[in-house]
Amino acid sequence: MNRVLTLRILGALLLFLAGALLLPIPCSLIFGDGASPAFLLSSAVALLIGGALFMGCRSEKDMSIREGFAVVTFGWTFFALFGALPFVFSGAIPSYIDAFFETMSGFTTTGSTILTDIEAMPPSLLLWRSMTQWLGGMGIIVLSLAILPMLGVGGMQLFKAEVPGPTTDRLKPRIQDTAKLLWGVYLLLTSIEVMLLMAGKMSFFDAVNHAFTTMATGGFSTRNASIAAFDSAYIDGVITLFMFLAGVNFSLHYLGLRGRFMDYLRNEEFRFYLTLTVGGTALLILFNMTDIYASFWDNLRYSAFQMVSIMTTTGFGTADYELWPVLCQYLLVMAMFFGGCAGSTGGGMKVARLLLLAKHAQVQLFRLIHPRAVRLVKLGDRPVEKEVMQSILGFFALYMAVFVIASFIMAATGMDLVSAGGSVIATLSNIGPGVGSVGPVDNFAHVPAFGKITLAFCMLLGRLELFTVLVLVFPTFWRK
Amino acid sequence: MNRVLTLRILGALLLFLAGALLLPIPCSLIFGDGASPAFLLSSAVALLIGGALFMGCRSEKDMSIREGFAVVTFGWTFFALFGALPFVFSGAIPSYIDAFFETMSGFTTTGSTILTDIEAMPPSLLLWRSMTQWLGGMGIIVLSLAILPMLGVGGMQLFKAEVPGPTTDRLKPRIQDTAKLLWGVYLLLTSIEVMLLMAGKMSFFDAVNHAFTTMATGGFSTRNASIAAFDSAYIDGVITLFMFLAGVNFSLHYLGLRGRFMDYLRNEEFRFYLTLTVGGTALLILFNMTDIYASFWDNLRYSAFQMVSIMTTTGFGTADYELWPVLCQYLLVMAMFFGGCAGSTGGGMKVARLLLLAKHAQVQLFRLIHPRAVRLVKLGDRPVEKEVMQSILGFFALYMAVFVIASFIMAATGMDLVSAGGSVIATLSNIGPGVGSVGPVDNFAHVPAFGKITLAFCMLLGRLELFTVLVLVFPTFWRK
Repeated sequence: MNRVLTLRILGALLLFLAGALLLPIPCSLIFGDGASPAFLLSSAVALLIGGALFMGCRSEKDMSIREGFAVVTFGWTFFALFGALPFVFSGAIPSYIDAFFETMSGFTTTGSTILTDIEAMPPSLLLWRSMTQWLGGMGIIVLSLAILPMLGVGGMQLFKAEVPGPTTDRLKPRIQDTAKLLWGVYLLLTSIEVMLLMAGKMSFFDAVNHAFTTMATGGFSTRNASIAAFDSAYIDGVITLFMFLAGVNFSLHYLGLRGRFMDYLRNEEFRFYLTLTVGGTALLILFNMTDIYASFWDNLRYSAFQMVSIMTTTGFGTADYELWPVLCQYLLVMAMFFGGCAGSTGGGMKVARLLLLAKHAQVQLFRLIHPRAVRLVKLGDRPVEKEVMQSILGFFALYMAVFVIASFIMAATGMDLVSAGGSVIATLSNIGPGVGSVGPVDNFAHVPAFGKITLAFCMLLGRLELFTVLVLVFPTFWRK
Repeated sequence: MNRVLTLRILGALLLFLAGALLLPIPCSLIFGDGASPAFLLSSAVALLIGGALFMGCRSEKDMSIREGFAVVTFGWTFFALFGALPFVFSGAIPSYIDAFFETMSGFTTTGSTILTDIEAMPPSLLLWRSMTQWLGGMGIIVLSLAILPMLGVGGMQLFKAEVPGPTTDRLKPRIQDTAKLLWGVYLLLTSIEVMLLMAGKMSFFDAVNHAFTTMATGGFSTRNASIAAFDSAYIDGVITLFMFLAGVNFSLHYLGLRGRFMDYLRNEEFRFYLTLTVGGTALLILFNMTDIYASFWDNLRYSAFQMVSIMTTTGFGTADYELWPVLCQYLLVMAMFFGGCAGSTGGGMKVARLLLLAKHAQVQLFRLIHPRAVRLVKLGDRPVEKEVMQSILGFFALYMAVFVIASFIMAATGMDLVSAGGSVIATLSNIGPGVGSVGPVDNFAHVPAFGKITLAFCMLLGRLELFTVLVLVFPTFWRK
């Protein structure tokens, strides 16, 4: 691996972060919350270290696959490490580990929080918190549609952006072109959501924050009670819609915005995602019918919101689902593993992978009856290559293994079994709230420091599709 | 599929069962428990129906793969359906569904029970109950080492018996030869255990029953308190050893008995099984150290027994592990998924499959760094064919899917989440006791009838390696 080049790119990313850290300052000045010095200082630290890395490490070479892995993994880690500074410098989150957890939760669009009183935070820091998710979402779109397919990670080759652009074999220009087009879509959808939320009498500040964290399927809110604080069926509806949209492959939105609406329905993953969301909501409504909600419309409102929020791994709350019937909780826990579509900002195992796993199992059964018949696993019309299928199966096995090992570590910190598993799946699938002591009305403040670091690592693993991070443990990776 | 031939073979199996049903009669006469008429009547029913099927369905054709699947699935089901009769006819278990659950739990060597007072049962029925497990264990050895490899189920090709015998391409003689040799090993080990248990002052009746259910990794006991009732470190030790042996591939025992002891250590699955058992026990001892057992020897005795009992899916109990620290419970729940070696009487996903899954994930990661390198998954020295690997990956995905769906159904019967998952894994992995309301000191009596049938189906699915049963749902399977 070319370490000099890697450090240079990481330096460039830190310079970008230094710029981003200045953006909440106008907000701080308007609200007069006194956090401006913290942002300035944080930006200066990022500028200094980023500048030193960028200027000190000169390399003429082009980026290859190995540097790609290192840049992605350490890039996200650096963002969390340095993005945590304003929380500490302002004194809003005194513990650096807590601030790191919160920022990793932001950049990975997870949404787990250690804040016990969100509304007591300075507004500019809340804005920064939402921004980390929005920027993380931007990163994920490009990562999943342009970078990971090239790196060959976990079957992501299947989902690369079908966005037109000058085709070139050099890594950088191709990524840049794809990024520009998809970020246009991301920005447009965010802006529309801001306007729709303001039409529902949300303040500009709240609207921007929630649009940021909806489109990133992040789930940070400016209110202690999350979306329930606004108590508006209209706002619930708008956010349900945009969470759903954020869980869709952004290539499809790009095509949709160019008038190719039928491409949504022609996409098999989208159809399966739609079926799961609608089917899951219908089951939730059914099981919630007798006990919880007397009115069908209330039932629909809360059930749809919660199913979409969990499926897309956003993690907003309008109801305490731990008070729902056991079957509803079971459905939601399953949905936690599923996640959104590949190429969306959603986390989890991804709908397409589950679809392909189910098809693979079916083909295996079919082969037993017809040993000589050739039947391939297909996605849409295209057969899925064996290598890709094996990669997806490997991903599934690794996901389960990480879940098991991390849950064990969390149980070792003293958590009960349900909370241990719940906290891991909530972070590994980048959802936010889990079940048990980290449920929808709880937070992660009580988790011991070692547990917080473990969970932050789970967020990173889940967000970067496992392989990207785990590949770094091979000694051969580091050879020059 | 040739239905006539299938029915004829099922008839022959019922005739065999009719004979087996006469065996507990001497025991009934010695104890004077009055259950003889029930056995006679049950045997007569099996004889009549089996005879009618065998005589009525004549087919000159040879068995093919399809009939193999049907015979295995329906054979086990018939044994449970007809083996349940003595419990009902004697009035010992008045409900037929309860008796069916208990008998399916027997023939699948699961060990889950609906009995609330085992010691109140007539001794001959307890013997029959233990016999169902012992016979089921016999069936599984031949199934996993001779039949499933030929059917190509779930990667079982890898584990076929390395037992010498006349090689022939005709199905029947090959199975018969393998069966005879392996049953010799099974019978020998059972006899040795009987003698060792009697040396520990266990009665002949108890020794036979427990040897039957140990070698089958079944776990039915003649006592309400299971093995804890004997309160003997010696008996605990003997049973721990024989549970461990029963969890090993019986081909290895065959070779071992011929003096080829090094073949154990040369076998990679055995080494992994040994590592998991010893490592798991060591961790249990560590976590149990402070809270539960003051003496190291007590700790070793109870920890080793429980780890081996769960890993091998036997399910005997000497301690209420639900009172152990959370981490111990977590380890045991994980071990529930693992199971014994392929080709043993143990259930679960099988150690070799997990080993290969781990290797597959490692190869996937390696490929990302070295895209052009060729690295195969190997078991021992032999590379594992891609088809076999895909079959194992399909098995893993199906196992998880069955676990999720069945747990959902159990939750729908009104169970809490932990008990729902616990009851499914306890039956799907053929262990016996689970966690929650079906824990080691509870039983399955309180489960509603629909739940009992679901769990009985899980036992069958798990025991027959999923594929064998699920293949029957394909309409094309039934075509002539």
